[in-house]
Amino acid sequence: MNAWWQQPVATIDTAAMAAAQARQAVLTKPPGALGRLEALAETFAGWQGRAVPALDRVDIAVFAADHGVAARGVSAFDQAVTGQMIANFAAGGAAICVLARRHGARLAVVDVGAVAPPPGVAGVIDARIAPGTADFTETAAMSADQLDRALQVGRERVSASADLFIGGEMGIGNTTSAAAVFAALTGRAPAEVVGRGTGVDAAGLARKQAVVAAGLERHRARWADMQGARRAQAVLRCVGGFEIAALTGSFVAAAQAGVPVLVDGFIAGVAALCAREIAPDCRHWQIFGHRSAEIGHTRLLDTLAARPLLDLDMRLGEGSGAALALGVIGDALALHAEMATFDEAGVAASDTDG
Amino acid sequence: MNAWWQQPVATIDTAAMAAAQARQAVLTKPPGALGRLEALAETFAGWQGRAVPALDRVDIAVFAADHGVAARGVSAFDQAVTGQMIANFAAGGAAICVLARRHGARLAVVDVGAVAPPPGVAGVIDARIAPGTADFTETAAMSADQLDRALQVGRERVSASADLFIGGEMGIGNTTSAAAVFAALTGRAPAEVVGRGTGVDAAGLARKQAVVAAGLERHRARWADMQGARRAQAVLRCVGGFEIAALTGSFVAAAQAGVPVLVDGFIAGVAALCAREIAPDCRHWQIFGHRSAEIGHTRLLDTLAARPLLDLDMRLGEGSGAALALGVIGDALALHAEMATFDEAGVAASDTDG
Repeated sequence: MNAWWQQPVATIDTAAMAAAQARQAVLTKPPGALGRLEALAETFAGWQGRAVPALDRVDIAVFAADHGVAARGVSAFDQAVTGQMIANFAAGGAAICVLARRHGARLAVVDVGAVAPPPGVAGVIDARIAPGTADFTETAAMSADQLDRALQVGRERVSASADLFIGGEMGIGNTTSAAAVFAALTGRAPAEVVGRGTGVDAAGLARKQAVVAAGLERHRARWADMQGARRAQAVLRCVGGFEIAALTGSFVAAAQAGVPVLVDGFIAGVAALCAREIAPDCRHWQIFGHRSAEIGHTRLLDTLAARPLLDLDMRLGEGSGAALALGVIGDALALHAEMATFDEAGVAASDTDG
Repeated sequence: MNAWWQQPVATIDTAAMAAAQARQAVLTKPPGALGRLEALAETFAGWQGRAVPALDRVDIAVFAADHGVAARGVSAFDQAVTGQMIANFAAGGAAICVLARRHGARLAVVDVGAVAPPPGVAGVIDARIAPGTADFTETAAMSADQLDRALQVGRERVSASADLFIGGEMGIGNTTSAAAVFAALTGRAPAEVVGRGTGVDAAGLARKQAVVAAGLERHRARWADMQGARRAQAVLRCVGGFEIAALTGSFVAAAQAGVPVLVDGFIAGVAALCAREIAPDCRHWQIFGHRSAEIGHTRLLDTLAARPLLDLDMRLGEGSGAALALGVIGDALALHAEMATFDEAGVAASDTDG
């Protein structure tokens, strides 16, 4: 029997895309003058199977977990902050909470395995796999069973009723794990993929690079002869994190459910890459919210052949850069739906003779 | 007696900026992780004189007028479209109308001189100076008195009660006039500043360049020995347009009234440059909404030392690219106001030892 992630992803409605394109051509503006907003409306038409798409329901899930490599001094913050931030997400005080409110999105907070989860906080989904992953410089970050469960945690957060899904993350040390996954899947050197994360200094950056190099060195043989889904899962298991695996599972499940994914920054982008390795057609259901200031992100976007909507030097995670792009998407769909056509407005279209 | 545009612009409250910066430092995120959103909140704090600024009232004014050079075949659209689009603005069917509704902004539609104004349309402010400017390849686009009146039309659209002002424009042929003004003020060659506007073909582009070159050739001696405000006004009078002058007047008046300006694309950007030539301190009250696909805009942004918020290949005008950036600004101010501090959330800040 096939695993769930081997099921096909949903198909795109190209007829609806063509209908949306035809509508764009008769709206009261020069052809192409709305730039990428026009393509956004057409893409959503293909996803929703209607010429005039709408963004009625946006689901955001923030997956939080801790990382064994935090013990190696790869973050400017203490590991206790992961649990403290889970409480902050639940209380509505974090950046992603503000943005979810501003854009009318539903926000789910998922503890996939913090070292110090907040006691008795309402509004946190308990999907704890373990109190953090193992230190991947010493052993595999997680077991095969834990990986399956983490992928499943992500899958369970996806509702086919959503018009768009954003996966956010929080976890002290997770830019290190994400960089290791990215390097393992692409053969890039640690120096190319390791950035300052939450803001480590030069010595911290050197430690992060050494930690990634050590992790790759220790585990490389595990996936050396593998391809595609098997390799991605081996990499996630050995050097990944619970929240990165949960994001990956959610991105695969969303594509299967016909729910497009608005990808956030570096860590979510690494999960988007893993999702494509596991189920290549996932890529048709991914758009990218922003270019992060994290140094590896531009290289990751190149790998994904992705051009994000925003570039505002953000590097927070939580899904915040994606949530910020909701405004642009909402505007694009509103323009597509509400602008008058040349006929409706009695405006003469351009002279076709040029 | 000094002219109105010689009055000083408002001052920035640097104490409020510092207070906003201090607040950003204790919000539950790594320092700097919100990138340009942090600077936006701090800048608005300086403009509003309070540590926690808000965007309660946004005023958009769209100035429409026709251009004598349209007779030279510089646009893909007929001049009648200017008047037709004025009716579309008033009826709520244009892109800027959709965006103004989405972002809760007030929209004023101002006819500064269309060739064929729509008959009996409610909701259009009649500030008509003439049925279009004169063809600047033959004579000055407008008289000195007309220029004064056009600047004044813009000034009158600015209310000190607004938290932000967007100036939009519409006018068949106005990328040609704007390019001529830009070239005249910077010494750039027509080929560097003339783009495809609403979408002319290669022959149309060549015609536009020739028209700009002819206009500069005819009028250059008028401003050859001038500097600053006098030169900018001579350039606007000889090769500008009523709506470009109105935008310029509005940008100067906004800075005087302490109302920041969110500048749209190429044409509004040329007006922002003119405003700086007339009143250099204006620049402290200007932010830039987007990078237009119009070819001269990137060079213009270089001249203005401006980094816009968005880059989405738009080239519509009307103030649409600026209006799209309202979402980002609103999000930035909401994050600044609503995020919990480390103390409030019980989250440990970063280790200052790195």
